[in-house]
Amino acid sequence: MNNKIKIAIFGGSGYGGSELLRILLFHPNAEIVLVTANEHAGKAIGEVHKNLSGLTDLRFEKSPEDLSALEKTDVAFFALPHGQALKLVPQLPDSVKVVDLSGDFRINDAEVFQKFYRLEYTATDLQTKFVYGLTETNREAIKQAQYIANPGCFATATLLALAPMVKSGLLAGKIIVDAKTGSSGSGAKAAANTHHPQRMNSFYAYKPFAHQHVPEIEQHLREVGEFANDFVFMTHSLPVSRGIFASCYLETTVNLTGEDLKNLYELFYKDSFFVRVVDGSPDINWVKTTNFCDIAAHSNANKQIVIFSAIDNLVKGAAGQAVQNMNLMFGLDEKIGLIFSGSNP
Amino acid sequence: MNNKIKIAIFGGSGYGGSELLRILLFHPNAEIVLVTANEHAGKAIGEVHKNLSGLTDLRFEKSPEDLSALEKTDVAFFALPHGQALKLVPQLPDSVKVVDLSGDFRINDAEVFQKFYRLEYTATDLQTKFVYGLTETNREAIKQAQYIANPGCFATATLLALAPMVKSGLLAGKIIVDAKTGSSGSGAKAAANTHHPQRMNSFYAYKPFAHQHVPEIEQHLREVGEFANDFVFMTHSLPVSRGIFASCYLETTVNLTGEDLKNLYELFYKDSFFVRVVDGSPDINWVKTTNFCDIAAHSNANKQIVIFSAIDNLVKGAAGQAVQNMNLMFGLDEKIGLIFSGSNP
Amino acid sequence: MNNKIKIAIFGGSGYGGSELLRILLFHPNAEIVLVTANEHAGKAIGEVHKNLSGLTDLRFEKSPEDLSALEKTDVAFFALPHGQALKLVPQLPDSVKVVDLSGDFRINDAEVFQKFYRLEYTATDLQTKFVYGLTETNREAIKQAQYIANPGCFATATLLALAPMVKSGLLAGKIIVDAKTGSSGSGAKAAANTHHPQRMNSFYAYKPFAHQHVPEIEQHLREVGEFANDFVFMTHSLPVSRGIFASCYLETTVNLTGEDLKNLYELFYKDSFFVRVVDGSPDINWVKTTNFCDIAAHSNANKQIVIFSAIDNLVKGAAGQAVQNMNLMFGLDEKIGLIFSGSNP
Amino acid sequence: MNNKIKIAIFGGSGYGGSELLRILLFHPNAEIVLVTANEHAGKAIGEVHKNLSGLTDLRFEKSPEDLSALEKTDVAFFALPHGQALKLVPQLPDSVKVVDLSGDFRINDAEVFQKFYRLEYTATDLQTKFVYGLTETNREAIKQAQYIANPGCFATATLLALAPMVKSGLLAGKIIVDAKTGSSGSGAKAAANTHHPQRMNSFYAYKPFAHQHVPEIEQHLREVGEFANDFVFMTHSLPVSRGIFASCYLETTVNLTGEDLKNLYELFYKDSFFVRVVDGSPDINWVKTTNFCDIAAHSNANKQIVIFSAIDNLVKGAAGQAVQNMNLMFGLDEKIGLIFSGSNP
Repeated sequence: MNNKIKIAIFGGSGYGGSELLRILLFHPNAEIVLVTANEHAGKAIGEVHKNLSGLTDLRFEKSPEDLSALEKTDVAFFALPHGQALKLVPQLPDSVKVVDLSGDFRINDAEVFQKFYRLEYTATDLQTKFVYGLTETNREAIKQAQYIANPGCFATATLLALAPMVKSGLLAGKIIVDAKTGSSGSGAKAAANTHHPQRMNSFYAYKPFAHQHVPEIEQHLREVGEFANDFVFMTHSLPVSRGIFASCYLETTVNLTGEDLKNLYELFYKDSFFVRVVDGSPDINWVKTTNFCDIAAHSNANKQIVIFSAIDNLVKGAAGQAVQNMNLMFGLDEKIGLIFSGSNP
Repeated sequence: MNNKIKIAIFGGSGYGGSELLRILLFHPNAEIVLVTANEHAGKAIGEVHKNLSGLTDLRFEKSPEDLSALEKTDVAFFALPHGQALKLVPQLPDSVKVVDLSGDFRINDAEVFQKFYRLEYTATDLQTKFVYGLTETNREAIKQAQYIANPGCFATATLLALAPMVKSGLLAGKIIVDAKTGSSGSGAKAAANTHHPQRMNSFYAYKPFAHQHVPEIEQHLREVGEFANDFVFMTHSLPVSRGIFASCYLETTVNLTGEDLKNLYELFYKDSFFVRVVDGSPDINWVKTTNFCDIAAHSNANKQIVIFSAIDNLVKGAAGQAVQNMNLMFGLDEKIGLIFSGSNP
Repeated sequence: MNNKIKIAIFGGSGYGGSELLRILLFHPNAEIVLVTANEHAGKAIGEVHKNLSGLTDLRFEKSPEDLSALEKTDVAFFALPHGQALKLVPQLPDSVKVVDLSGDFRINDAEVFQKFYRLEYTATDLQTKFVYGLTETNREAIKQAQYIANPGCFATATLLALAPMVKSGLLAGKIIVDAKTGSSGSGAKAAANTHHPQRMNSFYAYKPFAHQHVPEIEQHLREVGEFANDFVFMTHSLPVSRGIFASCYLETTVNLTGEDLKNLYELFYKDSFFVRVVDGSPDINWVKTTNFCDIAAHSNANKQIVIFSAIDNLVKGAAGQAVQNMNLMFGLDEKIGLIFSGSNP
Repeated sequence: MNNKIKIAIFGGSGYGGSELLRILLFHPNAEIVLVTANEHAGKAIGEVHKNLSGLTDLRFEKSPEDLSALEKTDVAFFALPHGQALKLVPQLPDSVKVVDLSGDFRINDAEVFQKFYRLEYTATDLQTKFVYGLTETNREAIKQAQYIANPGCFATATLLALAPMVKSGLLAGKIIVDAKTGSSGSGAKAAANTHHPQRMNSFYAYKPFAHQHVPEIEQHLREVGEFANDFVFMTHSLPVSRGIFASCYLETTVNLTGEDLKNLYELFYKDSFFVRVVDGSPDINWVKTTNFCDIAAHSNANKQIVIFSAIDNLVKGAAGQAVQNMNLMFGLDEKIGLIFSGSNP
C-alpha cells in the first residue's frame, strides 16, 4: 500500500498526453494506473513515445467502457480532442478529481462555447463545478476544486502577461495581443500546415479575429479585475517545435516607467515560482520543456506599454500547469515534480 | 562597346552585397564594373559567396581611394554599414547615380537621424537630393531621381501594408505594428544572437520602442497621406534565415468588410507587379528569395483591422528593391532582372 | 505560331512537378501546354504552388483519358508516383519524347525491378528505348534519345561522385556510400516522418541495405567502366528541406594525393558546367535550389579515399536534370533555363 | 554538515559547463562549491545560462590562483578548452578526484597527442593515473579511479557502437565510421560555421581523415578486444543543435542475421541502463537532452554490417557521462541524477 496519487490519463498518445507521462512518471507522489490510447492499445508507452523507452513498463489501454469502475482512481487527466471530456467526465464516480486539458469546460456561457467550438454544450450543471486552472491567479480556488478546466496554451501566455495590468486598474483603451506558437501546438498528427519541407521556412497568421481562446481570456480577465476593454487577439505559427510568445500592447492611464512595471510584475508574482520577470525580452529558448513563464514589460513616454511573455506550449501551456494544479488539489507544494530546467542550446 | 548600365557595388561581402550580385549578374541590362570588399580584396566572388561559384569571374577589390575617378560608372550601390555612404557619396562624380541601402539618407531631420543612428549628420545639402525608394508609392519621383535612399527591410514590409490605409483617409486611432525578421537581417558576421545552437529554438523581441526604422516609416506615411496617428512598432527575431512578417493593427472610422479591404488593396496596387494581395495570410515561405510582397487584410465587426505583409528581407527589403529602383532610374521596366520565383519547399 | 518546345507535365502537384513548373515557366524555349493534377483540376497553379502566384495563368487539368490525342506535344514529363508512367507512356503518340522522373524505366532487369519496386514490369520492349539520363556521363546517348529515364536523386549524387573513379580503373575493394537527404525528398504529402515538431530535431537512417536506388547505381556504374565491386549504400534523413549529401568511401590500387584526385575530377568534368569541383567539403547550402553538383575528394596515406557530393534533390536530383536532358534532346545548350544561382543565406 | 559530494567546476560558461550545472544542480548527492568562468566572474549563473534562472543562487567565480587550497573539494570537473586541464590538474591537492572533459588526458602516446592536439605533452606521469571514462566498457576501472579522462562526444557514439563487435572477435577488414554532429558541438562562442542564416540549411564534412577523436577511438578499441583493423573516420555537421549520429560500416567473418546482432548487443549491454538497443534506426530526436545512447544493427547476406548509434553530444557525449563516472567513483548507482527523459517533440 502506498499513499501516492492514483492517476488515469485519458488520451496518452497525443503531445498533451506525452508530456503528462514525461512529467508524472518522475513525480514522487504520482502513480499512473491507466493511460488510454485506443489506436495503440496494448503497446508499450516507450514504443510510441520513444523518449520514454527504458523508463516505464506501462502500456496503453483502450478507454474503459464503464468509467464508473474507476473509483480507486484519485484523479483523471483528459488530454483528448475537444468534445470528448464533455461526454466522459459525467460518467466518472463522484470521488474522482478531474483536470481537463481540452476546451470543453473553460467557457461558462453555453452560447459562446457553441459559437467557438461548434459543439453542443451538454454539461451546464457540471460546468459550474469547474474552476479555471490558471494557477497563478486562481490558486485558492484550485486548492478547493474537484474539477479543473486547464487553460489553453495561448490563454496561459496571454493571461499571465495581462493579469497584473488588469488587476492594477491602470488600463486604458484597447488591448492587442500578437501571439505566436510552435508547430507542436498543432498536435501529434501530421498535417499540411506542419509538413516539414514548408513549415521550416514558414511564418504565417491563422484564424484572424476568430481564435477559440479569445472567450476564455476575456472571461478570466473579468475575474481578475475590472475588464471591459476592447480586445484583439491574433495567432501566428512559428517554424519551431515548442514555445509560445505573446506580445501584448496596451495603454495605461498614467505614465509608468520600465522600473514601475518591473516592480508591479514582481509584486504580483512574488509567490509564483514559475513566473520569472526578466529584463529585455523573454525568449522561448529559455523556457522550452519547462513550466516557466518568462515575462518582460516596457513602456514609452506616451503611456504605451508592451508586455512580452514566453512559455512552452506543452508544459506551462498544458501538461505542466495541469500537474501544478493537481499538486494544489492534493495539498502538495505546487512545484513538486516540475522543477526541471530547460537546456541552454 | 555596349549599352549596359555600368555598376559599382560598395560593400560586396555582406548579405546585401551578396544579393545585389546574385540579382545583377543575371540582369540583362547590367554590367558590374566594380565590387568592393576590403577584407576580401583580390578574392574571386565565388570564393566568398559560394552560391556564385562558376557563375562569374569577378573579383573583389579594395574601395578606391579616389572616387572621383569613377566617372564611367553609371550607378553606385552602397551596401555598407550605417555611416559610410554618408562619407563616400559626396566624393562621387556628379554624373553617378546612387542607390544607398543603408539608413544614411533616409531621414530628412538631422536631429532625428542623430538620435536613432548615433552618427553625426554631415550631408544636409545632399539629403535634399535623395528620394525615398519605396518603389510602389514613390515611382514617379524615383524615375527622376539621381539619389535613392533605399528603404529599410522592416520599413518596406510595414509601409506596403499601411500605405493604402493611410492614403484612404479612413484611419482612426493608433497603429500597432508587430514585426518579425529572420536571422539574415543581422548580417553576414557571426554574433551571439545568430549562434545556431540557440537561435534555432529562439523567438524574442528586441529594441522595444526604439527601432531605427520608426522615423523613416512615420516620415514616409506623412508623404503618402494625412498621418498623425500614434504609432507603436515592435521588432522580433524569428528562427528562420529569410523573411519579414509584419502584423499591423489599426482601426477605421467606418466598418470595412474583408471584401472592402481586398478591393482597396487591389486597387492601390493594381499596377504593382510585386505586391500580391492574398486571401487568409501571407507566409514568408512563399516570398523567400523573391522580390514579392504578399499582403492580406482582415477586419472584425468593431472596426478593428489587421494587415499582414510578408517579404524577403534581403530582396524586396534590400537588394531587390534597390534594383527595381535602378530600373526605373534608367527608364527600364521595373521588373527586369527581378522575375524569378521562389521555391515551394 | 512559335518554335517553342510544347510541353506536357503529368503530375504537377508534387514537388517534382512544382520544380518543373518553376524552371520551365522561365525557360526561353519552353511552352507548357498541359499540366495535370487530378485532385486540383481547374485550379490556378499559383493557388497550389503559391511561390508561382502572379507568374502564370496556367491551370491544372485532369489527366486526359486519351493520350493519343497529344500529337502536338513535343515532350511529356512524368512526375508521378512509381508505376504510373509505366502505364501511360505506351499510350502516347510515337512522336512525343518522354522524360520520366519516376523509377519506372531506370532498371533494365525485370526481376530486379520487381524486387525493389514491388510492381509488375509490363514494358519490356519499351524499356530498351529508354536512355538513363545522368547528363554528365551519358550526354551523347541523351542527345539521340526519344525516351529518358531520369535518375533518382540519391543515384545522381552518388553516381556523379563515383563515376570518375570507376572510369579511372583505379578502384579496389568495396565501396560504401553514406547518403543523407532533406525532407522534401519524401514528397509534398504530409506524413509522420515529415511532421515538423519531430523532424526539425531528427536524424535517422532508413531502409538499411534495401534502398531502391541501389540497382540503378550499380547498373550505371557498369556502363561507366569496369565495375564489379561490393557496394553498400545507406540512406539517412536530414532535418532540412532541400539537399542530398553523399559521403563515398573507397580504396584505390595506388596512392593518390588530394591534388591527383582534384585533377582527375576536374578533367572528367571539364565540359560539365553543373559540376563544380571544390576544396574542403561541399555544403548543401551552396547548391540549394540550383542545378549544381559540388564535389570534393580526399585521401589518406593508406589508399583510402572519400568523395563528398552535394546536390539539391529536387533540381539536379530531379526536375533540373530533367530539363537539362530535354535541352539536349532538342539540340539546345544543356544550360538553357538552368543558370540560376542559389542564395547565400 | 552534510555528506554530499563537494564539486568544483572549472569552465562553467561553455556548453559543457552549462550541462554539468543543469545536471548537478538537481543531483541528490551533489553540492557545487565552485564554478569558474573568468569572463563572467561575479555574475549569477542564471544570468548567463538563462535556462537556470530561478533555480540557483550560485555565481561564477574567477579560477583560483592557488588550486592547492581546494582540499575540501571532493571532485573537480574540467570543462575547459584543450590544453588547460593539462596545466591545472597537477596543481590540485592529491585528495581531489578529477573528471576532465577535454582531450588533455585521453591519449597515452605523447607523440600521437602532440600530432592531433598540437600541444606539448607535459604530464606524462600523471597520464598513467587517468582512466578512460567510457562508462559501459570501463566500469570497474572507473570505480577505482582517481582521475578520469572523459571521452569525446564522437568517440562515445562510435565506441559504444563498435565495442560489442570488437569484443566479439568476429570483425574482418576495415571499419568506416560516418559521423554527424549538431552545432552545439562547436561550443558556445559564435563563429562562421555556426552562423544561423547559413547553418540552418547546411550539411558539410570537415577535417577529413584528421579528426582528433581518431586516436582515442583506436586506443580504446585495442583495450576492448583484438583490434588492428584499418579505421576510417569522417565527421560532418548537422543543421540541428544537439545530437551525434554515427553510421559504422564493417564486415564480419561469418554471416550474422539482424537477430544475431540484436542478441549480441543486448547481451553486451544487459547491465547498461543508458544503452538502448532499438529496431530500425535510432533518431537523435529520441535521445536529445538525455544520457541515453540508442543503437541499432543491421546486416546483409554478404557479411556487411552497419551499426547506427545516436547520443546527445553534450550529455552522454560530455557532461552526462562525466556525472555517470563521478557516481561510480563515489560508490553511487551510476544512474543517480541522470534519469531524466527527453521530450517527444
